[in-house]
Amino acid sequence: MDYSKAALEQLEAQKGKLEIVSKAKVETREDLSIAYTPGVAEPCRKIRDNRDDVYKYTSKGNLVAVVTDGTAVLGLGDIGPEAGMPVMEGKSILFKRFAGIDAFPICLDTKDTDEIVETVKRIAPTFGGINLEDISAPRCFEIERRLKEELDIPVFHDDQHGTAIVVSAGLLGALRCVGKKIEDVKVVINGAGSAGISICRLLLEIGVGDVVLVDKNGALAPGEDWMNEAQAEMAEKTNKEQIHGTLAEVIKGRDVFVGVSAPGVLTAEMVSTMADDAVVFAMANPIPEIMPEEAKKGGARVIATGRSDYPNQINNVLVFPGVFRGALDARATDITEEMKIAAVYALSEIVTDEEINEEYIIPDVFDERVAKTVAEAVAKKARETGIARA
Amino acid sequence: MDYSKAALEQLEAQKGKLEIVSKAKVETREDLSIAYTPGVAEPCRKIRDNRDDVYKYTSKGNLVAVVTDGTAVLGLGDIGPEAGMPVMEGKSILFKRFAGIDAFPICLDTKDTDEIVETVKRIAPTFGGINLEDISAPRCFEIERRLKEELDIPVFHDDQHGTAIVVSAGLLGALRCVGKKIEDVKVVINGAGSAGISICRLLLEIGVGDVVLVDKNGALAPGEDWMNEAQAEMAEKTNKEQIHGTLAEVIKGRDVFVGVSAPGVLTAEMVSTMADDAVVFAMANPIPEIMPEEAKKGGARVIATGRSDYPNQINNVLVFPGVFRGALDARATDITEEMKIAAVYALSEIVTDEEINEEYIIPDVFDERVAKTVAEAVAKKARETGIARA
Repeated sequence: MDYSKAALEQLEAQKGKLEIVSKAKVETREDLSIAYTPGVAEPCRKIRDNRDDVYKYTSKGNLVAVVTDGTAVLGLGDIGPEAGMPVMEGKSILFKRFAGIDAFPICLDTKDTDEIVETVKRIAPTFGGINLEDISAPRCFEIERRLKEELDIPVFHDDQHGTAIVVSAGLLGALRCVGKKIEDVKVVINGAGSAGISICRLLLEIGVGDVVLVDKNGALAPGEDWMNEAQAEMAEKTNKEQIHGTLAEVIKGRDVFVGVSAPGVLTAEMVSTMADDAVVFAMANPIPEIMPEEAKKGGARVIATGRSDYPNQINNVLVFPGVFRGALDARATDITEEMKIAAVYALSEIVTDEEINEEYIIPDVFDERVAKTVAEAVAKKARETGIARA
Repeated sequence: MDYSKAALEQLEAQKGKLEIVSKAKVETREDLSIAYTPGVAEPCRKIRDNRDDVYKYTSKGNLVAVVTDGTAVLGLGDIGPEAGMPVMEGKSILFKRFAGIDAFPICLDTKDTDEIVETVKRIAPTFGGINLEDISAPRCFEIERRLKEELDIPVFHDDQHGTAIVVSAGLLGALRCVGKKIEDVKVVINGAGSAGISICRLLLEIGVGDVVLVDKNGALAPGEDWMNEAQAEMAEKTNKEQIHGTLAEVIKGRDVFVGVSAPGVLTAEMVSTMADDAVVFAMANPIPEIMPEEAKKGGARVIATGRSDYPNQINNVLVFPGVFRGALDARATDITEEMKIAAVYALSEIVTDEEINEEYIIPDVFDERVAKTVAEAVAKKARETGIARA
């Protein structure tokens, strides 16, 4: 099926994906007196007198802003805030579909780090959480760090952490499937932008033996002069064997390939140089680093992509709805490393050792257990670590 | 019925009034491939290549931001952005109920004029229109003026213009009812803030003979030293007889009282000094300047309030849904004086000379003809005056 054509037709017919509806009927004067004046004055007074009551009498506690500046949309790059709107609307309806969260797109007409931080802080009173989306590196690091520090609601850059969590959970599944121990495996991550670096950090936190990050210039290693600040920092923590060179050179003998880069950069030839029982996560969107058929030819045993139309879909939709549901339910003031790791294990353990196989290393995106299981684990960890207000 | 109690109970049970839902089903992998990746990439490309396609493939064209800084909420004053949320949510569901518009509350954590203008401009890519709400004077004048100049989507401060339009339409009805000519009537407006001044301007534009604006310091007149800039400007254009003094003094012999001030400031005694067949519009919210029973005792023939629980409800809900519906349908780049005046006549003419009486000078808020009639008149005027893009 031609998804592009179907998407254009659906969006043109429906004029977008979102609709804002009322939870209350407004059919009589009495309804109006309750929903608006004079009735509405009393909840206003309550919140004026106790700001915390905004969670009791308004939608804030279930509202998440899906914020972008349109600079890193899908594989399309800097296409501007208006062109990012279809993705933000799509993301918003997934929040609703998978976790009952009311999410709303905020497409910003600025690329300036300070202005983005300032703008999100100014609109924050409406929202219970902020999901940063498709903001290019390295700005996204500072934007998220500052917003996490300065806001008392959860802030989460899904491209970094949602991806890191779902890849980590998928990797745990893949390793169970091929029977390798996490501390023994050697991983190569192609793409040293926000997603790649965030995946690398989380893989190290859950105990992966060795990771090499590769960028279009080659492997991140101390001494390379083309690295940005975030990359130089990662070079210190990764690449145990201090190898240099291109992806084709670095991938030799590796157990796992994780691609968050560009369509077609991985060949069957390269895959054939990997270790036995190779695991290939080719997650470039919408066209992966290597198509599953090709990876199979190269000898890969477990293959995952970001696509809905192949098995083992490594899709953030397995993560962000549950993570935010848990954070909102606990009224967490932040989404911490502990909460992310709790999400990794909760997600990976949904697929049992009996069920797991090459084409089923991670739950299906429509597995109704996923968001609920992740949310419970995240909320529990928030309460255990003392950052929950509910 | 205790509307305050009912509102608190409803809001606590429902956690606010808004829900964001999907126009498309997401039940299968195929649905997901259309609603999100890979399908979503194509509409993004279309908009990247032709920004105007954002109206074709996204919700922008039907999305209105209900923007406040919480400084002038109902009769409650500066209660902050969180406490303004129940009103903004209520307003949003009225947009949907009466005109099918998807409206969303944006409660701003700043009171600074420049910061508000800047913030609204930055989030504008998501929206097809901006409704400014409950922002205190005189800041609201500059905020609206600058946003109208700097944005290419309609911007409308409902507290000023929605109120002015509904009052003007109501006054035309009241005058038909009591048989007075608009050029002969003398009006006193109590409350010389944003709403009062805006009402005054529009009443003069539609031909009211004489208007005096009264503030807590007394009548606006040249020479008074307590007037702010906007008030001094109005003093030049109003008060033909150059009268000075308090409301009690100024109201003597007037045909029409228009109150956009505070609860209880008008007494039956004062009403009894007005001209025969006096018209009293007491619109302070939620408690009017005088209760209808009292105004009747004072001899008022036509009485209107802002409340849902009395006849002749002078409620902006008769205006803003239709005005925005018309502006959005025509893709107007602005909401002009001509469009406002078109709305006044369209609204007032819904009640025929045969139907009109003391308790029916303006259509009921649930009259299904209202939004449609106003929208058509507004869109028609936008197209006639060359500011429509559709």
